[in-house]
Parts: sequence; structure tokens; C-alpha cells
Amino acid sequence: MARNSPERFRAGDLVGLVGGTLLRADADLTLNRLASLEHAQPGDLSFLAAARHRRNAAASRASLIIVSAALADALPATAAGLVVDDPYACYAAVSRWLAARARPALTGPAIHPSACVDPQAQVDASARIGPGCVIGAFSVIGARVSLGAHTVIGESACIGDDSVLHPRVVLYPDCSVGARCIIHAGTVIGADGFGFAHEGGRWSKIAQLGRVSIGDDVEIGANCAIDRGALEDTVIGNGCKLDNLIQVGHNVRIGEHTAIAGCVGIAGSAIIGRGCMIGGGAGILGHLTVCDGAVISAMSLVTRSISEPGLHTGVFPLMPNADWERAAVALKRLPALRDRVRQLEQSLSESTEAPGSPGASGPDPKESP
Amino acid sequence: MARNSPERFRAGDLVGLVGGTLLRADADLTLNRLASLEHAQPGDLSFLAAARHRRNAAASRASLIIVSAALADALPATAAGLVVDDPYACYAAVSRWLAARARPALTGPAIHPSACVDPQAQVDASARIGPGCVIGAFSVIGARVSLGAHTVIGESACIGDDSVLHPRVVLYPDCSVGARCIIHAGTVIGADGFGFAHEGGRWSKIAQLGRVSIGDDVEIGANCAIDRGALEDTVIGNGCKLDNLIQVGHNVRIGEHTAIAGCVGIAGSAIIGRGCMIGGGAGILGHLTVCDGAVISAMSLVTRSISEPGLHTGVFPLMPNADWERAAVALKRLPALRDRVRQLEQSLSESTEAPGSPGASGPDPKESP
Amino acid sequence: MARNSPERFRAGDLVGLVGGTLLRADADLTLNRLASLEHAQPGDLSFLAAARHRRNAAASRASLIIVSAALADALPATAAGLVVDDPYACYAAVSRWLAARARPALTGPAIHPSACVDPQAQVDASARIGPGCVIGAFSVIGARVSLGAHTVIGESACIGDDSVLHPRVVLYPDCSVGARCIIHAGTVIGADGFGFAHEGGRWSKIAQLGRVSIGDDVEIGANCAIDRGALEDTVIGNGCKLDNLIQVGHNVRIGEHTAIAGCVGIAGSAIIGRGCMIGGGAGILGHLTVCDGAVISAMSLVTRSISEPGLHTGVFPLMPNADWERAAVALKRLPALRDRVRQLEQSLSESTEAPGSPGASGPDPKESP
Repeated sequence: MARNSPERFRAGDLVGLVGGTLLRADADLTLNRLASLEHAQPGDLSFLAAARHRRNAAASRASLIIVSAALADALPATAAGLVVDDPYACYAAVSRWLAARARPALTGPAIHPSACVDPQAQVDASARIGPGCVIGAFSVIGARVSLGAHTVIGESACIGDDSVLHPRVVLYPDCSVGARCIIHAGTVIGADGFGFAHEGGRWSKIAQLGRVSIGDDVEIGANCAIDRGALEDTVIGNGCKLDNLIQVGHNVRIGEHTAIAGCVGIAGSAIIGRGCMIGGGAGILGHLTVCDGAVISAMSLVTRSISEPGLHTGVFPLMPNADWERAAVALKRLPALRDRVRQLEQSLSESTEAPGSPGASGPDPKESP
Repeated sequence: MARNSPERFRAGDLVGLVGGTLLRADADLTLNRLASLEHAQPGDLSFLAAARHRRNAAASRASLIIVSAALADALPATAAGLVVDDPYACYAAVSRWLAARARPALTGPAIHPSACVDPQAQVDASARIGPGCVIGAFSVIGARVSLGAHTVIGESACIGDDSVLHPRVVLYPDCSVGARCIIHAGTVIGADGFGFAHEGGRWSKIAQLGRVSIGDDVEIGANCAIDRGALEDTVIGNGCKLDNLIQVGHNVRIGEHTAIAGCVGIAGSAIIGRGCMIGGGAGILGHLTVCDGAVISAMSLVTRSISEPGLHTGVFPLMPNADWERAAVALKRLPALRDRVRQLEQSLSESTEAPGSPGASGPDPKESP
Repeated sequence: MARNSPERFRAGDLVGLVGGTLLRADADLTLNRLASLEHAQPGDLSFLAAARHRRNAAASRASLIIVSAALADALPATAAGLVVDDPYACYAAVSRWLAARARPALTGPAIHPSACVDPQAQVDASARIGPGCVIGAFSVIGARVSLGAHTVIGESACIGDDSVLHPRVVLYPDCSVGARCIIHAGTVIGADGFGFAHEGGRWSKIAQLGRVSIGDDVEIGANCAIDRGALEDTVIGNGCKLDNLIQVGHNVRIGEHTAIAGCVGIAGSAIIGRGCMIGGGAGILGHLTVCDGAVISAMSLVTRSISEPGLHTGVFPLMPNADWERAAVALKRLPALRDRVRQLEQSLSESTEAPGSPGASGPDPKESP
């Protein structure tokens, strides 16, 4: 039984929520749950957000489908429609509404008795502090903040209003998280950046004196590591969305509304623009700049600054292994191959200079006797 | 002093455990510990599982070596043999037996007094709940389950019999783990998938209404992140083995007995077959299908569905950096090189069109002067 | 307000700390904080550590700049200098001194009342044990060790003097951490290595009987996973520095003073030398050897042993996506292209065998009629 199943809802509720016009249904149509076109059962709500899913819509058993006017003809006879301007955005809004219904805001004691809150911390009376949380001196926890179990907030750290930290987040001292953020379990914000001086064959530590500053409306997935700055701060702009297992090095600055998929690593002092999209497993070297609107393909490595928006890729194409072995050997010898081609071009150019046989790129045939 | 050293064991114990026949030893031969062929000392047990290790066996100081009949001649004169059908499987069985001897099942209070168990949770009386665990309402904890310190079990989550969760695992609400699973420290199961709708330059959250469903006999390493589904569930089949630091995106389905090495990232809605093996650091893009029995090389990116089992690879071969620089430049110019070769082919074809020698694709030789 | 801002310091303090000679300043020059050349304000201290930053120094508003004699002429007239032999090492030393001033050693109860310390553990009286820590039987915690909140120390594990474990580290049973180590939040040391025997389509677990042994002066970042050995131990040598989200497989041995950047994965039984540097996101396959002093570029995969120190690279160069598509197609056909070039070479050699026009690599012209 899925998380959104506890209670049915009405088509009219949806119109109240996202607007739009009902097609072949009235407001009292009762719905069981939200499901994909493929998995929907009679009684379910679904959505058609792109023309490439027309066929799935035509075959869907859903009873009500959120759809744009342009695609309304794709609905099967068995489905009513909720016609809206942006079906995907409406799906997002409905999903949030259903989630809130399925798991209403918690009530009960605001600070769990097992939490360990420093008397010099400022915790808003409306905040909820889970079991085992540890909150350091001089930290500030905003209104309606929710901290999951065992979350650790360092000294002088602060969290803006309405943010949710899931269990086991660590926010190191002095770091800040903005308002309406969501940080998933296990993420570590503000550990030391990777900075060492090489002295006589050993590494001596450079203390990391900067902080991490995270804007408003940022979401960060599970088990990420966002390092504090060496001197200045590491900054993640408003509205950024980070997936799981992402490393953000010290002094990195990420512009607003940039989305970063899972397993990405960003090295120290990189500057990422606004509205970028970085594919899963990609890497960005340090001390370079990625311009606003750049898109990096999955598992590609950015080795130089990018000054043009649009998609950039650098990944070896997947092949059956025997083909790969041949291609890899040929790739190793590619500079030699280029030399051989150059040699061929010269030889051909010379050989075609023979009397009466002008080559394409050879000397002017008129010069021939 | 290694974990398996506390107490000696007898060759006869091994025969009782895995069967087989002793060669040049009787059941009373006493052994100190299990070690690799290279590191074994006199008095130790070792194993020879593949012909390529014959030389290590011949040089080993082990007193008893688990071996197949086919390789028994590889043993040195100083070693007795335990001849079995599958030495590697016997090694596995012996290792498990020694581990259980070295660290017997815990006794003492079943629920640590510092744990925080919701009165509406169902915890089997035989389960062991470690210090600081937090167990949500309506969750179900099976028989003989062991939860390490600070593990957090969300509302309505459930864990099958005999599963072991090491310290600091987080199981989000509604997610389920099957029987006989092992989940290592720091792993997060059921955080929100990475789903957002783009609206006017901003990302609006798509609530993740699905769950995570993990089968029986699954092992998951440390600090992984397995996301809950957007609408339907993320599913990991029976017998799957996942290493550390692995990301599994929302709606992913992984077939039974698939093994995934460390640092792999699987994007949302990918379908992975049964009995696959995925090398460390590999990536799998979303919304594609990998067939049963496919094998993906380390750090290769799967960009399209795979319909043929067997090994697939896509990785740039490692080179001394100066060679790499030349190869990378040549690779960037590879399409141009191909054009040059095509041009050469044409030119050569034309140049060989000398009178009496018409080229296959050249202009009509009659036009030649 | 940055972490290093609470109290001003004097130029004379710096001379006392790192030596060197003041240029255009006396010991009473008062400084506000340490900043980069670009961000420094009047009153700040900065440093110039490489000739390539001369221009930044010339434009810097810092009041005092740590500099070598060779670069002292790069300072602007507004800045005094502290002339030393190794400005970067001095910056490191000053950063550590400022960090210690900004966050002095904690005082108060040595073992937090919420910690759960086994009566058979040996905890030095000078150690500080944070809230919610769990310390197993027979473990040994050295002098002046600091354990952050919720850190879990398994049975028979041990930690050397002066080491700092940040919140939520897990040290599995029997594992050891040396003296003066720093382990960041969320890191898991000693989870089971990824070892299974394949038996009839299923994976049977190989118990991991080895341990993890970490030397002195090692730093490990956040959310790493260092697996215990299968039979022998996983070993990380003295002075190694590991960044975040790194996987170290079972039986791996890493030589002293090797530095490993974030998101690296090292597969089981790899042997890494001393003084190596491994770039972010790189991968190292199992059962191979990397020699002392080898340097691996970011996101490169080491597939064979490396016997020569110096830089090794294997990464597909980043391109605008349309260029990449052409290059990827051409790469797949590269073996065929090589065959075409070979064919061209043969054809040209034959075609140039025409009377009176011997080809460079053609048959002996004397054979021509």
C-alpha cells in the first residue's frame, strides 16, 4: 500500500488546488491515488505531460488524467480529463498535496527529551527537534524547522524558517542553511575542505576557516558532503537542487536554481553558474568557471572553464567488450594513425605530380608540360 | 591479533562443516586461523581456488589447504589437503563459521534503554535494538533482527526476520527490508527521489509517494543512498549484493542476485535484470533497461538499453599524461581525420584512373586528356 | 562573520609563530583576519605563494602579505610583507593557529552523560566523549582523543592519542586509528568488504575476518567507507590524506603520505604506493599495484599496475555535445578507419610502382622493367 493511499480525494479538490477544466467528469468523481499512466488502475489519477507518452495514455486504465488541451485527444474513452496549462507542474502540485495529506505535520512535544540542546542555543518555540539531536551553543533554529533524529547542529550554526533536516544530518559549526530547505539523511555540511601544504614529503594541514552558506529553497539528497571554505565561504545559491552522494569542495560557489544529479564531484574553488544542470557522476575540476545555463552530461569531466551554455559531453561510448578492446588499442595509436594519414597525403600529393596526372591538391596542372 | 584468532579449531570440524576428504592429515590436526596462501604461517588453514594461484600454493607455509581434486598436486609437501568440490564456496562457509565463533550472538537486554521505540511499533521479542535507536509508529521489526546503535526506522517501515542493520542506518517511513538482509553503517534507504518540475526558471518539488522495497538475502554496504519511488516503488530483488557508496535512483528495479560494486550510480527508472554484475564507479542512465546477465565494466556509462548479456565497456584507456594529451587532441579531430581518409580514398581512386586503368568510383576515364 | 574573526592579532605574533622578516611593518601592526589576495580588505593578512598570482598580489588590498624574497617585489605599495622561505607552508601554520584561537579546546565533563560506554572499555581520563557516543567493550581510547556526537566505536577497536573523530563516525569492531588522526562526520571504517562466492546462481557471503588499520597523522573526509580486510587487514599508512566520499575496498594497502581526492573508488586488494596523488573521482581496479609517486588524473581508471611515477590520465575530453556525438561515432569506427588507412598505404604503394615513379615503401625499383 503506497504512501499516498490512505484516503480518497475528489476531482473537485484537484480543480480547487491547480485550477483547470474537467472533461467528461464532474467534481464529485472520487479517486483512489495518483499513479503513472502504465500502472494506474480504474479509480486512479494520472497525468500526460509530453506527446511521447501519447501511446501510454491511450492504453491507460486511469479514471482521470491531467492533460494539456493540445493532448486531450490522446485520452482513452474510459478516462476523464483535467485540462490544464502545464500538466507536469500540476502533477508536482498534486503530489505535494497528497504527501501532506498522507503524513500530516507532527504534533507532540516540540523538543524530544533525549535531545541535547545547549542552553545558549536559540530554538524557535515552533521548531521540532527529534530524538538524540545535539544543538550547539549560539546556534539559531528558525520557526517551524524540523530536525530528524540524531541531527547534529554545531556551535553558531543557523537554520532558516520552515527547513526540514532529515535524520542524521551534520551541520558543522558556523554554517548556515536558508529557509524552506530540505536536507536528507546522512548529509554532512561544513566538514573541512581538502587543503594541505606539502612540506618535506609530508602534508601539513591548512585549517579551513571559511564556512558553508546555503541559500533558501535548496534541497540536498542523502549522504552528500559539502565542505567549508578555506578562507572565504562555500556558497550554494537559492533554489539549487542536489541529489545524493555529491561532493562539493571548499570555496565552491553554485549559482541559483542549478540542479546537480547524484554522485557528482565538484573540486575546490570551482564557480558554477545559475540554472546549470549537471548530470550524474560528472566531475568538475577546481579553480574554473562554468557559465550560466551550462549543461554537463553524466560522467563527463569538466577540465576547463565553460563559457557557452548548452550541453557538453565527454564520455567514452559503451561497446561490447571485444569492440572496446579494439577501439581502445586504436585510440592509443591514434596520433600515429594521424601521422600515417599525413604521410599518405604527402605521398599522394607527390605521386600525383607525375606528368599528365594532376592530383586534386597538387600543383596547378597548367604548369605541367 | 585478527578477529578470527581467539580459538583454534580442528580439521575434523571443517569436514563436519563442509564435507570433503582429508589428504595427509587426520581430523585432529589443529589449526590457528584462516589466512591467504601468501600470508599463512605454519598452523594456518588456507585455500586454493583457481589454477592461476598454483604457484602461491606451492610456496605457501599453510598446514592445511582446501583444494579441489584437480589441483591437489599443487600442494607443497608441508601442507595437508582438504579435498572438496568447490574450494571457494568452502572457504566462504568456513569464513562464516569462524566469524560466528569469534563474535557470538549478543546477550543482554533486548532493547537498549536509550532506544526510543514508539508504543505503536511492533518489535519482536527476539529482536535486539541498540543504543539510541529510534523506531517509528506502526513499524514492524521481525524475529532476531539486530539494529545497530542510532539506527532510525521510520513510521510504518518494516524489517524481515534475521536481518542485521549496522549502526546509523536510516530507513525512511513506509520502506521495507526483507529477511536475512545485512545493511551496513550509514546507508540511507527511502530518501526522496530527485524529482522536480521546471516552472519559470525554478524547480518545484515532486513529492515522492512511492517506497523502497528490498527483498530477502540482500546485502548493502556503507553510506549508500537508495531513493524511494516517485509513484511506484523502488525495488531491489532477492539476493542482490550492493557494495558501498552506491546511489539507486527513484523507481529503479533491480532483478534478483545482481551484484553491484562500489560507487555505482543508477539513475531514476532504470530497470536492471537478474544476475547482472556492475563494476565499480559505473553509471546507468535513467529510463533504460539492462537485460539479465549483463556485465558492465568499471566506470563505464550505460547510455542505452542493453539487450545482450555479456561484458560491456566504455572507458578511456589510461596512458602516461603526455601520450594522453596527444590522443585527446587527435580524438577531438577524429571526425576530420575520417574526412581526410575519405578524401584520400577518392584521390587515390582518381589517381589510379590512368589510361587503361579505370577507377571504380572515379569519373569516366574517357574524359581524361 | 567568518570563523577566524573573533580576535585581532599582531604581525609580531606571526613572526613568533613562523619566523621570517617584516618588510615595511613593525611587530605591532594589527590584523583582522586571514583572507585570499582577492578578498582581503585593508587590515587583513594574506599570502602570495606562487608567481602565477603576482597580479592578484599587485591588486590586493591586504595590509600584510606573506611572501618569499623572490616575489617580494610583487607586493603593492599599500601592503607590508612578511618574508619567509615557504609562504604556503607559513599560510598553513597561521591558519592552524587562527583556528585554534577561534575555537579553543572544550572544557566541561569529559564523558557526556548520554554517552554509552561499556564498563570494559579503556577510555583515557583526558579524552572527551560527545553526546550519544557508544563505545564497545575492550576498546581503547587514547589520551586527549575527542569523539563527536553519536560516534560509535565497536568492540576491541582502538584510537591513538590526540585523534579527533567528528560526529557520527563508525569504527567497526577490532579496527584501529592511529595518533593525531582526524576523521570527519559520517565516515564508516571497517564495514564488511565486498566478498561473495557464486554458488548455483546465488551469492554466498564470505565473512570478512580482517580489520582496518589506520596509521598516525591520517585525515579522512566525510562519508567515506573504508572496508575491513577479508583475511588480512586493510591498511592506510601514516600521513595519508583522504577527501570525502571515498571507497577503499578490502585488503587495500595505501603507502605513507599518499593523498586521495574526493569520490575515488579503490577496489579490493589494490596496493597503492607512498607519496601518490589520486585525482577526484578516479578509480583503481583490484589486485594491482600503483608504484610510489604515481599521480592519477581525476576520473581516470587504473586498469593495470603502474610501475612508473608521474602523471597518468585516461579521460574522454569534454566537447560541445554535437562534436562529441561525431567523435563518439568516429571512435566506434576507429578500428575500421585504421584498416582503411592500411589499405590506402598498400594501394598507394602499389599505384606508385608505375614505371619511373618508385614509392617510398614499395618494392625495389630495380625490379621495375
